[in-house]
Amino acid sequence: MLEPMIGSMADELAHLLGDDALVTGSLRSYGSDATQLEGLIRAPEVVVAPGSAEDVAVLVQWAYRNEVALVPRGGGTGFAGGAVPIHGEVVVDMSRLNRVRALDPGLWRIHAEAGLTTATIHRLARENGLYFPPDPGASEQSQLGGNIATNAGGPHAFKYGVTGAWVTGLEAVVPPGELVRVGGPVRKDVAGYDLKSLLIGSEGTLGIITAAWLRLIPAPASRLPVVAGYEQTADACAAIESILASGVVPAAIEFIQGAAVDASRTSFPLTLPDTITLLVIAEVDGQPAETANSREEVRAALAPDSVTLWAPDAAAETAALWRWREGVSLAVAAEHGGKVSEDISVPLDRLREAIDQTVEIGKELCLPACSWGHAGDGNIHSTFLIDANDREDLKRAQLGGRRLHELAIELGGSISGEHGLGWQKRGRLALQWDARALELHGEIKRAFDPKNLMNPGKKT
Amino acid sequence: MLEPMIGSMADELAHLLGDDALVTGSLRSYGSDATQLEGLIRAPEVVVAPGSAEDVAVLVQWAYRNEVALVPRGGGTGFAGGAVPIHGEVVVDMSRLNRVRALDPGLWRIHAEAGLTTATIHRLARENGLYFPPDPGASEQSQLGGNIATNAGGPHAFKYGVTGAWVTGLEAVVPPGELVRVGGPVRKDVAGYDLKSLLIGSEGTLGIITAAWLRLIPAPASRLPVVAGYEQTADACAAIESILASGVVPAAIEFIQGAAVDASRTSFPLTLPDTITLLVIAEVDGQPAETANSREEVRAALAPDSVTLWAPDAAAETAALWRWREGVSLAVAAEHGGKVSEDISVPLDRLREAIDQTVEIGKELCLPACSWGHAGDGNIHSTFLIDANDREDLKRAQLGGRRLHELAIELGGSISGEHGLGWQKRGRLALQWDARALELHGEIKRAFDPKNLMNPGKKT
Repeated sequence: MLEPMIGSMADELAHLLGDDALVTGSLRSYGSDATQLEGLIRAPEVVVAPGSAEDVAVLVQWAYRNEVALVPRGGGTGFAGGAVPIHGEVVVDMSRLNRVRALDPGLWRIHAEAGLTTATIHRLARENGLYFPPDPGASEQSQLGGNIATNAGGPHAFKYGVTGAWVTGLEAVVPPGELVRVGGPVRKDVAGYDLKSLLIGSEGTLGIITAAWLRLIPAPASRLPVVAGYEQTADACAAIESILASGVVPAAIEFIQGAAVDASRTSFPLTLPDTITLLVIAEVDGQPAETANSREEVRAALAPDSVTLWAPDAAAETAALWRWREGVSLAVAAEHGGKVSEDISVPLDRLREAIDQTVEIGKELCLPACSWGHAGDGNIHSTFLIDANDREDLKRAQLGGRRLHELAIELGGSISGEHGLGWQKRGRLALQWDARALELHGEIKRAFDPKNLMNPGKKT
Repeated sequence: MLEPMIGSMADELAHLLGDDALVTGSLRSYGSDATQLEGLIRAPEVVVAPGSAEDVAVLVQWAYRNEVALVPRGGGTGFAGGAVPIHGEVVVDMSRLNRVRALDPGLWRIHAEAGLTTATIHRLARENGLYFPPDPGASEQSQLGGNIATNAGGPHAFKYGVTGAWVTGLEAVVPPGELVRVGGPVRKDVAGYDLKSLLIGSEGTLGIITAAWLRLIPAPASRLPVVAGYEQTADACAAIESILASGVVPAAIEFIQGAAVDASRTSFPLTLPDTITLLVIAEVDGQPAETANSREEVRAALAPDSVTLWAPDAAAETAALWRWREGVSLAVAAEHGGKVSEDISVPLDRLREAIDQTVEIGKELCLPACSWGHAGDGNIHSTFLIDANDREDLKRAQLGGRRLHELAIELGGSISGEHGLGWQKRGRLALQWDARALELHGEIKRAFDPKNLMNPGKKT
């Protein structure tokens, strides 16, 4: 793209959307996401931050008229390069759409714009005795629109489902620039085809989500975790299945493999034995008495063969535990300077194979490998540790990613449980889907975005 | 359609799918559904019952080759004419696809074919200490495939969500006759666009669902209802909002208007005062001690202004209450020989207006009117009582339906909360959706079914 064209494009957009809408200064931070890989850093030339849903519609109309591709971007905390420009697209920073349009605590619902952070939604719910369960992480940065566009998960999806389960309605701009609304502040709606679910998880390739109506629920009065460490992966996986057999529905069942525990051992709220191969965290929530009972059931399920068993009671300890859990990913990345993490999901009875095979694949590629993730949902962050500046390491890790995707499908699972395909996994859907389903995928894309200007090349 | 053509079509299908697959004898029962309206009884000429998912694929290939339209049909218990042939389509009876492909109680999941009845799924779950929450009614007749194809709701959708919330994967035949699979025995999958949700609720217009992977959960040990009667609709609606303010999450919050209670008063397990304008049933479930506590909260929320307050403890009483609740629809229909019931949904704070306006619209059209339904979800079965053989009555009731749809949209709701559009509400989506969303609806239909042979004319 030539300098004068960029200049005139920026001028035009400032004229259309207001000077405030043109993001100036260094745009480098818009060129990557949480993957932080050299191959995925491509700073954009132009970034706009529209101030309203109507302005997003004006922007998409302009893009369609001028055949300019757009990359919508929330907090930039994704793990698949979904919000990263690839071929000179204009990046659409959604952070100015940060109004709460309506908050009705008595009706358990909120109407919020896409640019609100996850933490803000959590806080607004909490201040009103309510709870918005999706907790995909990076809550101070990640935005509602991005969470919906990736259908983000998180630890508590085991009991509460992923982000989409809490969306009763969406407002979105779809090409060639129409502001449409599907659903709303209603809890049931089967009038048309489920366009709402089609937009959820579409990673900005079908349109730009501008606002959502969300369900909330009363905040559980109590939450109590159990932490158990095992020396054998098989014992840990058997213990996880024992939780299900106990009849308790935990809010979360997480696992962290020994090598990942090692990377963050010093910040764990307890001294852990060196011999742990797999750490399991299960949490129950609800009314206090019931939660205490359920926790005992979970503790009993996790006890056999455990070498560590910890059941903290203080809220501060639980908070410290989850802070540690959220830090695992960064701690692992820091070990060798970089990592490539996947997010395959498998049926729960294949969890052990997925964990073991991750390490095997790493061995074959001469890369240290480990995993952690949402055990109850069979959603595993299989990870290869690399030197982020070593192109050979990156290449081998990407080959490992391919092997993991094949493994996920072999085990009856999915190549992506919560990150989406983005740019990183482009072209991989063909591994998972039948030819006709894949064809329909393409036809849906063409129906929404006939000029292929909405986040092109992603989610394929 | 001419007699010889029908004869040869039947022969051809018997040859293709086996003699067993050709349904013989009177086909009249295939010509209507639970609406039981004269205008919606059109007995088909040919009914086939394929014996396997592969045979469904063969059938759709045949239909596409010969340009014959198909109407897939489960238990025929729908309320929108969705499974009724209109222009001589071949009806596809799914009841022979009734195999449980896998039941994994320890992993809380089942892989079931589309023709299994809802009652069978409920029983299989129950026998294994588990629970499949969707309870759209007519459980002995309604089938899994039909429930998924309409995304059926029911009373307990308030806490547990509608049928689609329990489907982790689908197998379906889509034109021109491919057996595709989206999702599976995995709890998280964001690889492709959400084709699974697109098929859920598509009423057989995009393809024929042949099997599903379902999530189950441990059965709640206890369920306790509270029944409260009110003389004023406003008091009842205020009481319903008080339940939400109490912080309890009930499993169900139902309402039945006085006129509907009157139609079934004799079978109610308790003697109710004549002055009741609105009856509310709220139920809580969970562990016994917690459930008892929550029930007290619900009772306290419902008590003010109530003229009846009943909180039965015996499981037999609870069962009798729900049997009565399920019979309300038939009892009301019996009053004048027929009824036209809608299923609009509105935001909860507009429930009172929807209830009052239903009666007003009835008055203007000189038809007795009343409503009942899933109060917590704002999902109302607004009903006009008619003489089913009186064409004038039917016409006025249909006009009333149109007025109700306009009302639902005016109140920020949906023209269908759980029945779908079927044939009865054809053309009405245009009232609710933006032009571009409606256009995308049509393009999705064309992408899946370019020859418009899958349940044509429905879901528009």
